[in-house]
Amino acid sequence: MSDIDILISEVGPRDGLQSVKAIMPTEAKKAWINAEAAAGVREIEVASFVPPKLLPQMADAAEIVAHAKTIPGLDVVALVPNFKGAENAIRAGADKIGLPLSCSETHSQANLKKTHDQVIEDVRKISELLATLPADQRPGFEGSLSTAFGCTLEGEVPESQVIDLAVRLVEAGVDELSLSDTTGYANPTQLRHLIRLLRAEVGADKLDGVHLHNTRGLGLANVVAALEEGITTVDSSLGGLGGCPFAPGASGNIVTEDLVFMLDAMGLRTGIDLDKLLKVREIVIAALPDEDMYGFTPDAGLPKGYTAGGWGIG
Amino acid sequence: MSDIDILISEVGPRDGLQSVKAIMPTEAKKAWINAEAAAGVREIEVASFVPPKLLPQMADAAEIVAHAKTIPGLDVVALVPNFKGAENAIRAGADKIGLPLSCSETHSQANLKKTHDQVIEDVRKISELLATLPADQRPGFEGSLSTAFGCTLEGEVPESQVIDLAVRLVEAGVDELSLSDTTGYANPTQLRHLIRLLRAEVGADKLDGVHLHNTRGLGLANVVAALEEGITTVDSSLGGLGGCPFAPGASGNIVTEDLVFMLDAMGLRTGIDLDKLLKVREIVIAALPDEDMYGFTPDAGLPKGYTAGGWGIG
Repeated sequence: MSDIDILISEVGPRDGLQSVKAIMPTEAKKAWINAEAAAGVREIEVASFVPPKLLPQMADAAEIVAHAKTIPGLDVVALVPNFKGAENAIRAGADKIGLPLSCSETHSQANLKKTHDQVIEDVRKISELLATLPADQRPGFEGSLSTAFGCTLEGEVPESQVIDLAVRLVEAGVDELSLSDTTGYANPTQLRHLIRLLRAEVGADKLDGVHLHNTRGLGLANVVAALEEGITTVDSSLGGLGGCPFAPGASGNIVTEDLVFMLDAMGLRTGIDLDKLLKVREIVIAALPDEDMYGFTPDAGLPKGYTAGGWGIG
Repeated sequence: MSDIDILISEVGPRDGLQSVKAIMPTEAKKAWINAEAAAGVREIEVASFVPPKLLPQMADAAEIVAHAKTIPGLDVVALVPNFKGAENAIRAGADKIGLPLSCSETHSQANLKKTHDQVIEDVRKISELLATLPADQRPGFEGSLSTAFGCTLEGEVPESQVIDLAVRLVEAGVDELSLSDTTGYANPTQLRHLIRLLRAEVGADKLDGVHLHNTRGLGLANVVAALEEGITTVDSSLGGLGGCPFAPGASGNIVTEDLVFMLDAMGLRTGIDLDKLLKVREIVIAALPDEDMYGFTPDAGLPKGYTAGGWGIG
């Protein structure tokens, strides 16, 4: 990614849509993904491979992945909760599969109905499956450390537990890790500290992405802290759609529009055209008329005279 | 301030109340100030000394200052737009007076009806008046560089212009400067850059405070950047009340509750009891039932198991 500084990974079509009750029509999902890719978004988490009876919002996951794969230059990510989901995501052709491991075991049981040992065993089996594929057909495999900054069920989650699970995920075969503030508990100091500890333990190349929430308003402050630690991939959701339905009170992904405005104003290249991105909201609003779309920058507008690529220095 | 790391300067009773149409009863203002001081807030901007016909919300400024002065340990700040206002604020007994100089001359004309030269002349006259007072009766004098990060009327404001005005304010006799993102245009990179330039020019001891808005959601991200530059005084407003009524589209001070949560979670001492602070909202909500009170932390609640003084490290 030599022509961009920060990779924004849009998670709205997965994380956002699985959190809302309404089912977005397949064609609207495709239009959303098309429009975001056309605005310059390079990576989109487009679907979750879970049983449709659990998440009917994701029943068209295979079709969505297949469609997204037709967009040149787009990295297509799918969430998988288990081995079966991974098989389906691989078959659909995802470029990357992500499996969440909740650092809080209570949350793991609530979210995936599995203990840590069971999730790690799934990861091992998925890695073995991936190893059987030809290199050019093998998706990347990311393990996401969710509830890494605290849990709405357990409270504080010890750093040592997060590190232990990170090591186990790497040993079980994931290519990379992502650090996830599922509950919106993280603060900049804690985030910096945990990134440093994790990288010291598993290697900086294994931890490149963060998934942060704005539940307590600290989302972008945490992004700034993460960037200063060298993180270069940041998840966000258009209109802030989504959150974790199994973590009561936790809602509000980082708003992609606000994130792109901040990074662009800071002179960091994302490859995303902010004006085009802001127009993508219309697709989501039309398809989900009963959902709130968040975002400070969309409400306030861009600064007077704003031009892309930095603001106010000089 | 050896027992705290960061001084939070609450501006709601001035900045917040002058932006809302309703006039808060004097007794409610006193109750608000009392309650925030009791929660541990050490500095409150309690009033603005402007003609009541322009801002009837501030007609009781002298009574409010006199009341706030009875609270032990509280630094009582008053905003003054001109020499006459300064005379009145000094007579009322303010511990510190703050005069805003808009770095955008167009905004200065709209806000204070004055050119830069006229404002600087006012500052000089106020400094002369202050010099005639006995040291123990002389309030501090702060010059606030407003619209320092861009202007809703002019657009970009050159850094060189902000620095030039900062130098002129110091030469005209202010004790200290505050850097103000009146329009919510600032980003972390720009903020860091301007703080460094200003401190290099006027001395680090002259610039200790920032007044940031959350108009585009970057308020707390900017706070983190400012703290990393060594800033130790941060303005905010309970419930995010306020903004600048003369800057169209600009609204939303940083929410004191979210700021205190972030700093406390980061292990930075503010001297403020977060639980008590959250209860202060009830006073404002009761007195201003038609106003929106913002805040992510008040909506989401504190993390499960949260205890004051840091979160999640160890």
